[in-house]
Amino acid sequence: MEQLLGMNFDEVSLQFSKISMYPLFDAAHYIVSVMALKEQPGAVDVARRSPFACWISAMIYCFGGAVLSGLFLAEPALLPFSNTSNIVLASIIWYLVFYFPMDLVYKFTAFLPLRLVLASMKEVTRTWKVVGGVAHARARYEEGWLVMIAVGWAKGAGGGLMSNFEQLVRGVWKPETNELLKMSYPVKVTLVGSVLFTLQQSQYLPLAKHQLMFMYTMFLVINKIRMMITHSTTSVFAPFEAVLYSLLFQWQTGVQGPSGAPKKGIKGRKESPNGSTDTNGNISESVEEKANGTTVPRNGYRKKTD
Amino acid sequence: MEQLLGMNFDEVSLQFSKISMYPLFDAAHYIVSVMALKEQPGAVDVARRSPFACWISAMIYCFGGAVLSGLFLAEPALLPFSNTSNIVLASIIWYLVFYFPMDLVYKFTAFLPLRLVLASMKEVTRTWKVVGGVAHARARYEEGWLVMIAVGWAKGAGGGLMSNFEQLVRGVWKPETNELLKMSYPVKVTLVGSVLFTLQQSQYLPLAKHQLMFMYTMFLVINKIRMMITHSTTSVFAPFEAVLYSLLFQWQTGVQGPSGAPKKGIKGRKESPNGSTDTNGNISESVEEKANGTTVPRNGYRKKTD
Amino acid sequence: MEQLLGMNFDEVSLQFSKISMYPLFDAAHYIVSVMALKEQPGAVDVARRSPFACWISAMIYCFGGAVLSGLFLAEPALLPFSNTSNIVLASIIWYLVFYFPMDLVYKFTAFLPLRLVLASMKEVTRTWKVVGGVAHARARYEEGWLVMIAVGWAKGAGGGLMSNFEQLVRGVWKPETNELLKMSYPVKVTLVGSVLFTLQQSQYLPLAKHQLMFMYTMFLVINKIRMMITHSTTSVFAPFEAVLYSLLFQWQTGVQGPSGAPKKGIKGRKESPNGSTDTNGNISESVEEKANGTTVPRNGYRKKTD
Repeated sequence: MEQLLGMNFDEVSLQFSKISMYPLFDAAHYIVSVMALKEQPGAVDVARRSPFACWISAMIYCFGGAVLSGLFLAEPALLPFSNTSNIVLASIIWYLVFYFPMDLVYKFTAFLPLRLVLASMKEVTRTWKVVGGVAHARARYEEGWLVMIAVGWAKGAGGGLMSNFEQLVRGVWKPETNELLKMSYPVKVTLVGSVLFTLQQSQYLPLAKHQLMFMYTMFLVINKIRMMITHSTTSVFAPFEAVLYSLLFQWQTGVQGPSGAPKKGIKGRKESPNGSTDTNGNISESVEEKANGTTVPRNGYRKKTD
Repeated sequence: MEQLLGMNFDEVSLQFSKISMYPLFDAAHYIVSVMALKEQPGAVDVARRSPFACWISAMIYCFGGAVLSGLFLAEPALLPFSNTSNIVLASIIWYLVFYFPMDLVYKFTAFLPLRLVLASMKEVTRTWKVVGGVAHARARYEEGWLVMIAVGWAKGAGGGLMSNFEQLVRGVWKPETNELLKMSYPVKVTLVGSVLFTLQQSQYLPLAKHQLMFMYTMFLVINKIRMMITHSTTSVFAPFEAVLYSLLFQWQTGVQGPSGAPKKGIKGRKESPNGSTDTNGNISESVEEKANGTTVPRNGYRKKTD
Repeated sequence: MEQLLGMNFDEVSLQFSKISMYPLFDAAHYIVSVMALKEQPGAVDVARRSPFACWISAMIYCFGGAVLSGLFLAEPALLPFSNTSNIVLASIIWYLVFYFPMDLVYKFTAFLPLRLVLASMKEVTRTWKVVGGVAHARARYEEGWLVMIAVGWAKGAGGGLMSNFEQLVRGVWKPETNELLKMSYPVKVTLVGSVLFTLQQSQYLPLAKHQLMFMYTMFLVINKIRMMITHSTTSVFAPFEAVLYSLLFQWQTGVQGPSGAPKKGIKGRKESPNGSTDTNGNISESVEEKANGTTVPRNGYRKKTD
């Protein structure tokens, strides 16, 4: 982007870093999050059976990062719920997306061009959250770079990291998958961002904060749009990961890496041509299983089916 | 009650609001809670195999509200355990109810007239806890009415809200049910109470605190006695819920509400002729599954049935 | 030990109590913990598929006590991660144990004489943690002896107590077992230690802190070595437990105790001749199930296999 913006880059990025998230960008974050919830298998059924559990789930999608970083730093887990205007905004959006007659709101926001705009705006909020988390942790643990990374990560990708427990609210329990075992793209890119901002704050990067914010956000937005348009689930990090993996974990014994198919057990993501992928990049478990033609239980043991 | 008590209502309710919970009412709460634990399927077996896990479970039943609201507000989760006299009282009651020779204590307290008295006294402690939780949250977040509701709710119905994790202590895991998906009566009435006291504290109700405490407690007690005598599980809120549900979530598409049978997925309570319903209103999963003609285990794998 | 050391006991134990844990003893703790993780079924597979989840698991094994006691006392759960040098040391050890070419590091440390030394050193850190936890809790709740016991216990045996959630990170979920239902030896001995140090700090024991530290550590080390050499899983507490159990929970009805085989449900440890036991004393679940000749799924329902 530096070439494009020429000598004004510093000024542009400084102005950019002063954008207020509330209400427009926050609203976009809530819309995209609630839509992602609605696209989870079973979520519409839960919304009909138990609007309350559905609302709690939606709040975890929208405010999970704040709740999780609160737990990490022993700050009240309910702190985000003291911000009434944000909660009301998210609740109205939840209501409209789930219950509007004929599903018009969902259909409207799911219209690709609009969705691209909303998803891009949501990515902008991610930058702000990561930066906020890293700065907040740094104020308490100046030398604790691991704490800074973890809090920035939790703030930016809290909903994903808490997904097991968010699902539990809806009566779904999938212990064999979690975002640590198999990171989805948003969780991964947030971790990378958190590392970058921690390095920046500790002055290991030759960049000002607003410059890094601008560049990281551009990367997020462009990459998100590319993935949505091409329906690609290939992470841009895949080559780096593969190199890193072979350097760190593979040179010893030549075992199959995470991007290769392990001999047994959980299958790699890319090898599954039939796997449907939701907007969060999570492969629908049931579809993946059905694609095998036989019923493979979740815990990986093949039961006798004939 | 106002008519009954005439002009003395204010004075009576004021005196009532000054009752001390410790030790009598607290003891009643512990007795009823530990009895409820003992009546859980498998609890007696756990008590025999692992008295320690059973004791932890009993403590969660008795002090779960304080633990949960502690987590919500980033106060020590172990704070209730620093109150030695309450813990000792609850532990003695746990021991007597579970291990007294020939089960005499349990049989004695389960004697209906006595149980009615104890259950009524337990309901009184619920009011005190909700009021305490709301006031405590209000002291920290004056404008955070959602935090006030949540903390009052957690304090008053903590054991129920934590039931999934309380069961985990006893080696039971039922992810498909939780108190958010399908609220039991105590959890529901505590939520209503927490909303009322939050409104009262924010001066939206034309009532003094002690008046509302008196009226809410009367409602709790009378309703509890009615339910215990008639063995009824019909919530007094059912009509209101139905109206609210149709107003909010049903007018759009005419979908079947929570009191109607959804087209697929988990079946509604009343329409399920084969579903056995326990006193908490939870449909026994296995029975429901058998009703489908084939046996589908909970975790979604179809077992061989032929 | 008093006889052996004669009149110098007080002096020796005082010097002993001044030993610094970092780096040598801490390193031994990390090595033994990471080796225990590596010996968990499926852990090596997770290490290959998802080094990140494996690292998180290893950190829970190494620092779980600090995280758990943080949650108990509303102190930042991430606090141990602000101690960079310890985290780096543990991470290097994790890397070497899991990924060193030809598994040489693991094989080296698993060499019995060396393992005995390392395990003994790890037991020393346990004393230090229990003492630290009890003292820390006492500083905040002088009269809360239950809080002191719980925090000392959590600090000393946190990884074990959190094992359900540590397993969840690796995609394993065994709700039917936990350390409260069936305490392993390390969890049990830590609880005993925590009770002893709480008594000592409350001046109910005629011993100085450094004397109790020395004696408790000697007990831990000698007992650990005995168990490792004889491959024994018989707890030294078994006779005391049996007596205590019959005194407290058995005299009423003559039910089968925890050391006897319950009629159904989870089997007692000692009766399982085929159960393989890992270094933490946990019976491998799968082995235990296979020993029945038929496949019994985790949730306790017997599937049709013919």
